[in-house]
Amino acid sequence: MIIVLRPDATNEQVDHIIEKVKKLGLTPHVSRGTERTIIGVIGPEDILRVTPLEVFPGVEKVMPVLAPYKLVSREFKKEASVVNVGKGVKIGGSKIVVMAGPCAIENLTTLSEIAAQIKEAGATVLRGGAFKPRTSPYAFQGLGEEGLKMLKKAGDEFGLATISEVMDPRDVELVASYVDILQIGARNMQNFNLLKEVGLTKKPVLLKRGLSSTVKEMLMSAEYILSGGNFNVILCERGIRTFEDSTRSTGSR
Amino acid sequence: MIIVLRPDATNEQVDHIIEKVKKLGLTPHVSRGTERTIIGVIGPEDILRVTPLEVFPGVEKVMPVLAPYKLVSREFKKEASVVNVGKGVKIGGSKIVVMAGPCAIENLTTLSEIAAQIKEAGATVLRGGAFKPRTSPYAFQGLGEEGLKMLKKAGDEFGLATISEVMDPRDVELVASYVDILQIGARNMQNFNLLKEVGLTKKPVLLKRGLSSTVKEMLMSAEYILSGGNFNVILCERGIRTFEDSTRSTGSR
Amino acid sequence: MIIVLRPDATNEQVDHIIEKVKKLGLTPHVSRGTERTIIGVIGPEDILRVTPLEVFPGVEKVMPVLAPYKLVSREFKKEASVVNVGKGVKIGGSKIVVMAGPCAIENLTTLSEIAAQIKEAGATVLRGGAFKPRTSPYAFQGLGEEGLKMLKKAGDEFGLATISEVMDPRDVELVASYVDILQIGARNMQNFNLLKEVGLTKKPVLLKRGLSSTVKEMLMSAEYILSGGNFNVILCERGIRTFEDSTRSTGSR
Amino acid sequence: MIIVLRPDATNEQVDHIIEKVKKLGLTPHVSRGTERTIIGVIGPEDILRVTPLEVFPGVEKVMPVLAPYKLVSREFKKEASVVNVGKGVKIGGSKIVVMAGPCAIENLTTLSEIAAQIKEAGATVLRGGAFKPRTSPYAFQGLGEEGLKMLKKAGDEFGLATISEVMDPRDVELVASYVDILQIGARNMQNFNLLKEVGLTKKPVLLKRGLSSTVKEMLMSAEYILSGGNFNVILCERGIRTFEDSTRSTGSR
Repeated sequence: MIIVLRPDATNEQVDHIIEKVKKLGLTPHVSRGTERTIIGVIGPEDILRVTPLEVFPGVEKVMPVLAPYKLVSREFKKEASVVNVGKGVKIGGSKIVVMAGPCAIENLTTLSEIAAQIKEAGATVLRGGAFKPRTSPYAFQGLGEEGLKMLKKAGDEFGLATISEVMDPRDVELVASYVDILQIGARNMQNFNLLKEVGLTKKPVLLKRGLSSTVKEMLMSAEYILSGGNFNVILCERGIRTFEDSTRSTGSR
Repeated sequence: MIIVLRPDATNEQVDHIIEKVKKLGLTPHVSRGTERTIIGVIGPEDILRVTPLEVFPGVEKVMPVLAPYKLVSREFKKEASVVNVGKGVKIGGSKIVVMAGPCAIENLTTLSEIAAQIKEAGATVLRGGAFKPRTSPYAFQGLGEEGLKMLKKAGDEFGLATISEVMDPRDVELVASYVDILQIGARNMQNFNLLKEVGLTKKPVLLKRGLSSTVKEMLMSAEYILSGGNFNVILCERGIRTFEDSTRSTGSR
Repeated sequence: MIIVLRPDATNEQVDHIIEKVKKLGLTPHVSRGTERTIIGVIGPEDILRVTPLEVFPGVEKVMPVLAPYKLVSREFKKEASVVNVGKGVKIGGSKIVVMAGPCAIENLTTLSEIAAQIKEAGATVLRGGAFKPRTSPYAFQGLGEEGLKMLKKAGDEFGLATISEVMDPRDVELVASYVDILQIGARNMQNFNLLKEVGLTKKPVLLKRGLSSTVKEMLMSAEYILSGGNFNVILCERGIRTFEDSTRSTGSR
Repeated sequence: MIIVLRPDATNEQVDHIIEKVKKLGLTPHVSRGTERTIIGVIGPEDILRVTPLEVFPGVEKVMPVLAPYKLVSREFKKEASVVNVGKGVKIGGSKIVVMAGPCAIENLTTLSEIAAQIKEAGATVLRGGAFKPRTSPYAFQGLGEEGLKMLKKAGDEFGLATISEVMDPRDVELVASYVDILQIGARNMQNFNLLKEVGLTKKPVLLKRGLSSTVKEMLMSAEYILSGGNFNVILCERGIRTFEDSTRSTGSR
C-alpha cells in the first residue's frame, strides 16, 4: 500500500499517519521528495483495506499494490485449472469445449432434436434455460423444474453434460440435482448470496461476466465461490456494455 | 413495430412476412420505396416481441415503436407519484427528502449519535446497512437482524423513517418487519427474483440504478415490482459506470 | 424514415406533417394504430436528415431506416476492396499483412536494424512515427521531415512499404511525398479538415478508429475520404475506450 | 513514481533498476516486503515518464504519483482563474455567463433576431457556427468567413461578446480576427496542432471536453494551450459518451 501525502502536509500529520500504521502492526517506509512525501507500507494489505486512511488529514490518495483476491490468483495456484464436469468433459485443458442448446427449454421433443444436432456438430455440453432472467415481467419465465427434468433426460440420452442457469439462492440445491454445471448469469455476477450458496456445493459453476464488471471484480466474484470451498469455477467472458451498439456486447468473445 | 426489409428481399419473402403478421392478429402496412420496403405493424407489440421476426429471410431489422413497460409509464398514470413512507415522510412531492446514515451499522451507541446529528441537519430518513453487498468475501458482511433492531430503535427514538438494503429473497419478510423502506442495491437491480419478492409486499421500495443499466432497464425493473402489486417504488439515480474514474460514478445525481 | 407520433397528436398536427413531407417531394405512408400513428416516408432520406422533424408538434421521434453513408456501403460496391500500397503489398485480400516498427523514429541506425528484423519476421510494411500526437506538450514530438527521410531510406533498403502518421492538414503533401500509406490516428478520426485533405491525394490512407467512435461514425469518416476522390481507404480497428482498464482498449482487434 | 516489482524478481534485477534510476539523477527508496518489493522514486517524474521502466525484467507495474500537468494545476496557481473576454464579460467569477445562439449561422437577418432575443433573455455571449464539424461530408459545412462577418456585426450591434469554432490550424488567425472567444470542439480536444496554434494567440479559448476524454486528458489539452503562452483557457464540460442513449451525452454537472 502506498500513501501519497498532500504537498502541504505538516510534519505532525505525517507523524500521526506513521504512528497509526505502526499500531496496525505494519512497517512504514517514508520517502521525502521535493514535491511529495510518500509512505510505503509493508505487510498484509487486508488490514489497511478496511482502515480508511484517505480521510486522515494530509493524505492525498492511497494506492493499493497487491490484488485484493487470493485463492483465484496465480500466486496461490500456479498451474492452469482444469474443471472436470463429468461425462468425460474437462474444461480448461488443451481441448476447446463447445456448449450449445436453446435459450429456453420449451419441450422434450424439440430439446432432443437439438441435442442430437449439437452432438453431431461436435458440442459436448447441452445448455438450456429452465429459469430465465427476463427484463420484462410479462415474458415467458421458463418451465422451472419441469425443464430441468427434460434437460437431464436429453443429456443422458445423448451422452452430453448439461448446464442451466440458477437465479435464486433457494433454487441452488434443486438445479444442482439435475445438471452438471450451474450457470450464474451476467446479471447475477455480483449477487453475493447466490455466489455463497453455489460455493457451498461441489458442482462446477460457470460464472458469466457482468455487463459492467471489470476483470478484477469478476475474479472477486470467483473468490466468493472458492472461499466457500468450491474450486470448480469456470469463467465466462461474454463481453461488456459500451456505447457501441452495432454488436450486442463489446470485448473478447 | 417497424420491419425494415433488405434491398434484395423478394416478393415471396415480403408476402411470407405479411402473412405471418396477419396470423398473429396484427395489421401490416406495407410501404414500398425505391431503396427499401418497410412494413409498419399496428397492434399490441408484445405479441411481436416474442416472435423473432429478425430471423425471417428478407428482414434487415425490426424496430420497436412503443416502450416495453406499461404500469410505470406516464400513459398509464399521468400524475407524479408520491410515496408515503410513514413517520410523516412523503417522497415525490415538492419537498426534498434527505436520507442519511452510516454505510454499515456497527453498534447502537454510534447509530444513535448519527441519528441525532442527521435529524439536526434536516434529514428525515435514517439509512444503515445490516446486510452488506461486499465485493470481497473477506470484508465485514454486516450485523444482520441485530443491525435491523438497532436501526428500528434509533429511528423510533428520533422520529426518523428508516431504510436498509435487502439482498436475498429469503430475507425480504425479515427486513420488511423492521424498516420503513426496502432498498434494492445497484448490483441487484436485475435480480428479478428479489424484485418479485419485494413486489409481493406493500412496503415502499427504493430501487437503485445498476452500474450498467439504461433508464429503460431501470423502468423495466420497477415494472417487475409494480406488476407484483406494489406501486410504492422510489427510483434512485446513482450514476453509471464509465471510463471516467475521477469520480466514483458518472451521471446526474 | 419513420415518424412516430405522440399518443395525443391531433389530426391537425398529423395533416401538417404529411403536408410538409409532400412539399419536400417525398411520399408519406400513414398507419393509424390503437396506441400510435406512424408515418413511413419513402424517398431519399438525405432530404429529411436536414429537416428537423423532431421539433414539429405531435412528433415523438424520428427513426432513420437507411445508413447515412453511400460510397463505403456494400450496396455501392459489393466486392471486398483490395488496396495496392506499392512494393508488392496489397491489403484486403486473402493474405494477412503485418505492419511493424518503432512508435517514434529516433535515428537511421536503429530504424534500419528494426527494419531488418521485422522483414526477417515476415512483416511487409515498416511503420514509424515522425509527427507524434502527444498528450503532453513536454513530450518528444518526433523528428518531423528528418524522420520521414529515414523511414523512406530504411523502407527502400529493405524493400518494405512504409506508413507514418499525418496530424496536420498542412503536412499532408509533405508526408505523402515520403511514405506509401498515410496514417490518420485515432484522435484525428473526426478531424474533418484533415480527412478532406487526404481525400484529395491518391495515397492509401489507414484510418484508425477513434476511442469513442461507433462503427457507423468510422464509416462516415471513411466516406469523407472517398467523397474527396480517394478510394484507397484501409480501416483499422484498434478498440474503444471503456470502463475496463486491465487492457489498454476494449474490442475486437 | 512507484515501481512495484514482481514476487519473483531477483536481487540482480532489483539492483539493475536501482542503478538505472540513480543514473537518471533520481533517488530510489527501496522497501522490501514479504509479498513484494517496491521502489519509491523521488525527483522530477517527467524524466521517468519517458523511460519505459515497465519493460525492465522484474518490474510488475509503474505507478505515477504526481499529475502530469503543471501550468493548469492548483499548485501552480492557487486562485480561481477569471478570463476577461471583452465587452464587459468575465468568465470564472461569481456571475454565471450564458452563451447562446444558432448552431450554424445562416444569414444576418436571422442572426440579428436571435441576438436580440438572447440579449433580452440575459445572455452576454453570442455563439454561432461558421465552420461546422459535420460527420457527413454531404451536410452543410457552414458559411466560413462570410458567417464570421455576420457574427461580428450582430455582436457589435447588440453589445454581445462572440464565440465561434475553429477547426483547422490554418484558420486560427482568420477566426481570431472576428470573434472574442475561439471555440475548440469536442472532436478536436486532442488535435494537438490546433491547440498549439491557438496557444500562440492571446485570444480566450473555450476548450470542449472530448466525448471519450478523461478530466486528466482535458487538463493536458489545456496545458498545451497554456504552454504556448495563452493562459485564457475556459473549460467546457459537455458530457461524455456512454452506453446510455436516453440523453445525448452523460455527465456535465
